[in-house]
Amino acid sequence: MSRFADRKGPIRLGMVGGGTGAMIGAVHRTAARLDGHFDLVAGALSSTPERAQASGADIGLDPSRIYDDFTEMAKREARLKDGIEAVAIVTPNHMHLPAAREFLKRGIHVICDKPLTGTLADAKKLQSAADKSGALFMLTHTYVGYPMVVEARTRIAAGELGDIRLVQVEYAQDWLSTAPAPDNKQADWRTDPARSGAGGATGDIGTHAWHLARHITGLQPEALAADLQAFVPGRALDDNAHVLMRFEGGARGMLWCSQVAAGLENGLRIRVFGTKAGLSWAQEHPNHLTITPIGGAAQVITRGLAETSQASRQRTRIPPGHPEGYFEAFANLYTDAATAIRAHRVGEPLPDGLIFPTVAEGVEGVAFVDACVRSSKRNAAWVTL
Amino acid sequence: MSRFADRKGPIRLGMVGGGTGAMIGAVHRTAARLDGHFDLVAGALSSTPERAQASGADIGLDPSRIYDDFTEMAKREARLKDGIEAVAIVTPNHMHLPAAREFLKRGIHVICDKPLTGTLADAKKLQSAADKSGALFMLTHTYVGYPMVVEARTRIAAGELGDIRLVQVEYAQDWLSTAPAPDNKQADWRTDPARSGAGGATGDIGTHAWHLARHITGLQPEALAADLQAFVPGRALDDNAHVLMRFEGGARGMLWCSQVAAGLENGLRIRVFGTKAGLSWAQEHPNHLTITPIGGAAQVITRGLAETSQASRQRTRIPPGHPEGYFEAFANLYTDAATAIRAHRVGEPLPDGLIFPTVAEGVEGVAFVDACVRSSKRNAAWVTL
Amino acid sequence: MSRFADRKGPIRLGMVGGGTGAMIGAVHRTAARLDGHFDLVAGALSSTPERAQASGADIGLDPSRIYDDFTEMAKREARLKDGIEAVAIVTPNHMHLPAAREFLKRGIHVICDKPLTGTLADAKKLQSAADKSGALFMLTHTYVGYPMVVEARTRIAAGELGDIRLVQVEYAQDWLSTAPAPDNKQADWRTDPARSGAGGATGDIGTHAWHLARHITGLQPEALAADLQAFVPGRALDDNAHVLMRFEGGARGMLWCSQVAAGLENGLRIRVFGTKAGLSWAQEHPNHLTITPIGGAAQVITRGLAETSQASRQRTRIPPGHPEGYFEAFANLYTDAATAIRAHRVGEPLPDGLIFPTVAEGVEGVAFVDACVRSSKRNAAWVTL
Amino acid sequence: MSRFADRKGPIRLGMVGGGTGAMIGAVHRTAARLDGHFDLVAGALSSTPERAQASGADIGLDPSRIYDDFTEMAKREARLKDGIEAVAIVTPNHMHLPAAREFLKRGIHVICDKPLTGTLADAKKLQSAADKSGALFMLTHTYVGYPMVVEARTRIAAGELGDIRLVQVEYAQDWLSTAPAPDNKQADWRTDPARSGAGGATGDIGTHAWHLARHITGLQPEALAADLQAFVPGRALDDNAHVLMRFEGGARGMLWCSQVAAGLENGLRIRVFGTKAGLSWAQEHPNHLTITPIGGAAQVITRGLAETSQASRQRTRIPPGHPEGYFEAFANLYTDAATAIRAHRVGEPLPDGLIFPTVAEGVEGVAFVDACVRSSKRNAAWVTL
Repeated sequence: MSRFADRKGPIRLGMVGGGTGAMIGAVHRTAARLDGHFDLVAGALSSTPERAQASGADIGLDPSRIYDDFTEMAKREARLKDGIEAVAIVTPNHMHLPAAREFLKRGIHVICDKPLTGTLADAKKLQSAADKSGALFMLTHTYVGYPMVVEARTRIAAGELGDIRLVQVEYAQDWLSTAPAPDNKQADWRTDPARSGAGGATGDIGTHAWHLARHITGLQPEALAADLQAFVPGRALDDNAHVLMRFEGGARGMLWCSQVAAGLENGLRIRVFGTKAGLSWAQEHPNHLTITPIGGAAQVITRGLAETSQASRQRTRIPPGHPEGYFEAFANLYTDAATAIRAHRVGEPLPDGLIFPTVAEGVEGVAFVDACVRSSKRNAAWVTL
Repeated sequence: MSRFADRKGPIRLGMVGGGTGAMIGAVHRTAARLDGHFDLVAGALSSTPERAQASGADIGLDPSRIYDDFTEMAKREARLKDGIEAVAIVTPNHMHLPAAREFLKRGIHVICDKPLTGTLADAKKLQSAADKSGALFMLTHTYVGYPMVVEARTRIAAGELGDIRLVQVEYAQDWLSTAPAPDNKQADWRTDPARSGAGGATGDIGTHAWHLARHITGLQPEALAADLQAFVPGRALDDNAHVLMRFEGGARGMLWCSQVAAGLENGLRIRVFGTKAGLSWAQEHPNHLTITPIGGAAQVITRGLAETSQASRQRTRIPPGHPEGYFEAFANLYTDAATAIRAHRVGEPLPDGLIFPTVAEGVEGVAFVDACVRSSKRNAAWVTL
Repeated sequence: MSRFADRKGPIRLGMVGGGTGAMIGAVHRTAARLDGHFDLVAGALSSTPERAQASGADIGLDPSRIYDDFTEMAKREARLKDGIEAVAIVTPNHMHLPAAREFLKRGIHVICDKPLTGTLADAKKLQSAADKSGALFMLTHTYVGYPMVVEARTRIAAGELGDIRLVQVEYAQDWLSTAPAPDNKQADWRTDPARSGAGGATGDIGTHAWHLARHITGLQPEALAADLQAFVPGRALDDNAHVLMRFEGGARGMLWCSQVAAGLENGLRIRVFGTKAGLSWAQEHPNHLTITPIGGAAQVITRGLAETSQASRQRTRIPPGHPEGYFEAFANLYTDAATAIRAHRVGEPLPDGLIFPTVAEGVEGVAFVDACVRSSKRNAAWVTL
Repeated sequence: MSRFADRKGPIRLGMVGGGTGAMIGAVHRTAARLDGHFDLVAGALSSTPERAQASGADIGLDPSRIYDDFTEMAKREARLKDGIEAVAIVTPNHMHLPAAREFLKRGIHVICDKPLTGTLADAKKLQSAADKSGALFMLTHTYVGYPMVVEARTRIAAGELGDIRLVQVEYAQDWLSTAPAPDNKQADWRTDPARSGAGGATGDIGTHAWHLARHITGLQPEALAADLQAFVPGRALDDNAHVLMRFEGGARGMLWCSQVAAGLENGLRIRVFGTKAGLSWAQEHPNHLTITPIGGAAQVITRGLAETSQASRQRTRIPPGHPEGYFEAFANLYTDAATAIRAHRVGEPLPDGLIFPTVAEGVEGVAFVDACVRSSKRNAAWVTL
């Protein structure tokens, strides 16, 4: 039976950030709602009180659960009998640590948008806060929620590719190809070191690519060498990065992330090559995974086919040929978060096989950005990880 | 501002059919939930009382709103102060008429799965019931909810292809290539004339293809000639159909629908050719629409690009490159239904531009099946529509 | 060892038609040259003496072998000690019969462009002339020369798809979407019944689609029903056709050919579905063949892979990933013609497995056109084949 | 009028290397023959006399023009009244210099397979020999002969992409994924430093990728950093390389070449991104070029469309939709070589716009390999070019 059957007992969820007009906040709300496991009941949706109130009203929150300030929200919700069990943090990067800390220390689970933080120092503090808390912490590396990413990972783990030799991963967009319009909020904070942190493209999307490569292959990174650029005049953060990667055991790879790749939209793509076969997956066509044996015919595997693994099949909702997309991938993370939270409710250990990016993975992501920046400053010298 | 922002005042929804294990019931529930406009609060999810109770409990309905019988449900909900405003009917075809009638006559809006009914006689009765009712009626021809179908329709209406000459539409699957296992409920009723009605593939998916062709082009059908087959031994209904089409004004077309096209999954695809340009859209890659001017380079337009129409852009939730799929298309219908219902609440006329397949379109679909069957019996003679 | 190794003893070839500016004459010359089996040594390249002389000079023929008239050419070459062994006939359709007859009756092999003739009466006369002649006759249905068409045919013959149920074939172009410019020679004769014959699109490209379907599947046609159109005002011949097909044994199919499919270039595509699997091949991406088992992953097979059949592999020249195209497919026919001619030289029977479309296949093609025209005149009634 | 019309006066061509069974020799012969500009009349096809004789006989050379030794061939052909005007050198890399030198110093034009030589020292000597000679020298970087590469170059030169920021180029194969069988001649010499030279994958295919990037963009390289691997145990030369590139003016790029990318066939692909638009071309689907404006719909341009440049259109032979491939691209180089040689015959300057990779470009290619090797030995330090 499908785990997507509706269940009793939704989880009470709050949100920090994600006011009217913010893209990723709306995405989190839709993802949380899609499988019916969460009820959004409280929010501090903006750091501007007026906007926080209007945004909360706009999404139909009970006025008594609309907060101007996340600390106040954490304090009050923690005391309410039916207070939130979990909070989604969807602010700019620099606020992840202060916001998460308030909830974690009160035992409220945190579902946090990526990257973990803007700086490595903050990341370590957040890890420490999460480690000390009895509550759960999930980082929403959306793309590992796609069923065919699960399939790729499962097949690699089973040895279908043989020993991994090569990883080619890229995440290229064009939306920051020019200096953004002043009212483009998404672009504004992402190009501002004070809010975005040390990385531009590396932080915003390079961390996704890095996480995906790590997650799919299970390879341990050894070192990287990075050449970062800021192509748009006056830009303070990288908008493009070329990275060489070395993994333990001898595998090698390249990572490219870009916000100035003219005409590309959300071009996350990974290819992995082993001693027996290769595979390829592209986020913009996420319902298919291609396996290419050495010297043989390519196999194009559709999400949900009988021959796919149980791990990927249980993360689809409809038969092959009915496309699922970004929201369904995101919802898979929320649904695994729900499973974890429900286990936590009753004191059970988390079930095996959850797709649940951890705070430690988040620290690794920020360490990746930090290493890229350090390497690039030293003219793309190798930096050990 | 996006119309997907969460809003106050969700619509109270009931469901008839869609018990545990039924595919399309779960799809309707997810679609209804995705944009946050509906609350599912009541259901008669199965015609078997025990299964109705268990299924209702499974999805967390209040026990007092779980019904063993849709007539009882219609009666009681109509009297409740907070009774349902709308009902989703997701039973096998032969129950659409009796179920819909009970709700329509009590002023409860109906969102009905396709095809409208199993027989043309039933279709006309349902149309009459809908026409007499003050309530709204929507038929869920899912595929017209895809933003790039909206884009195709908008561009054709604007004359971008010139005068339409040709329509090539196909909907091919392979899931009924062999006699289905006895416990395959989806297959069981769809291959049974008593429950499916006059058409097999023609009814289940041919009606989608036909509706899509009509909806995108706006062409008025004149006549068709159909050659129907039942390839699987012992099958009582068609599992494949080849149809020639003639439209008013001289356009011509072909329609192919099949449940025995080995290796195809959910292959709905339409191509339209005019005096200036052609277009192509395929459901399995729904985020792109291809326009092909005579003698020129193809243009591949992604969902959500600035150059797309307002009508398609307002039906997307995320930027280009973040794939949307089947659920989002389905949710677009539910969201337009919500808009219509909210207008109806306050006595306003329905806004222009809704994607809202009507009961009349449903009758046309069943008339298409009827014409196919009649034509095929007369050796593919032309049947006027 | 490859059969493409250059060999001693090229075959002396003549050409009728194909003067300067004619597309298909140049194609035949290139195809004949590609594998090095032919030397073009004589020609009557135009029915206009001045143009015949200039065209012959232009391609470097010896002035003594440039003829103003094909009858004169046939007579003289037949008497020369080193006269031509074979002739390529690349005139408009109405000249195929008179030209071929002159060479066949003198024992000169004929390689003739398709369709065989413009009318069925002519086709039967040409068949009779070929049957009486000791010389060989090949019709250049180019597309069956593609290695992946050979692969498709081989796999179907071996039962890989199971019993064939469905054939979907289409050949759609847009180059006659409007009335052609007066100086467009290609378009001019193809839209003129006196030179093209009974069929427009049906004759020019429908015959290719029909031949491909027959050749790949080996199915015997039983009947067809055709709806033909002439969309461009004033056009005397069909420029679009929709055809239903019935084959012996119960297989069914559809054929679409069009010269007014806006934005399509040379869209020949075939899909075949059986009781076990389906396959798909598209001429515009000819180096790949897709096999789709019921309910399983698609296999994309590249030309030249080790797992392909000997029959297709011996018709490729370079490893997978190095694309071959239209000329190489065409050259495969010429090379099989050379093999046949060399066997004929020494009185040996033709080797098995040649790709060598016969005059009988040509008659079938013209019979297809004839049946389409008759059916369409009777409002798409079935016509037995 | 097409430049592919056959012309009088073919060019007498010889060949060094390319004995029976050698892949690239047969490719050169086919390419030289395709447009009818060359007659192959002499050859020293193997360094083994017996094999040289057998191979010459096999392709039908006059016995008096079959040589056991290229020096002897150069000497004798230079004295013959109808001796060769040009020679194709298709030996392993280490023989390019000695062979080419013999012909260049006798005024015989050289068409040489890539890379120019195995070592940089040899490359400079060959450049010197070519510069001193009155004869022409062309290096067959096949891929720049593709019409859509010409189209890409033309559009970039015209500013259609704006200022170039990024170049992503890759050339990945899998044919050396394992230690080759002992009788695999192609693999044998390519993995032997004595014959292949300093580079493995870098030399054999990296030079193609590098040349393509330089040729299409016109960018001047400044420096590179390379991480080379030999994944197959015991392999003496690199079989995979990851290269960072910096160009004058600030453009940046990555180059990946591999012979161990499991399941890839001949995966040469280039993407270029500028301040206005990007483009993408893939050798395995060479008839299309994709242009992607920032934030806009992709344009897929087919070879031969009216909107393509004269420079690319004159290098096609057939209308859009009729695929050309590897041989036609190769033949474009041979045809431009023929044009150059004919100009040289009559003492005219070479016409503008020839696709004619020079000895200087060949030196650059070997310098690229040399820089990769030096950089990799220094742990991927930057090496100035």
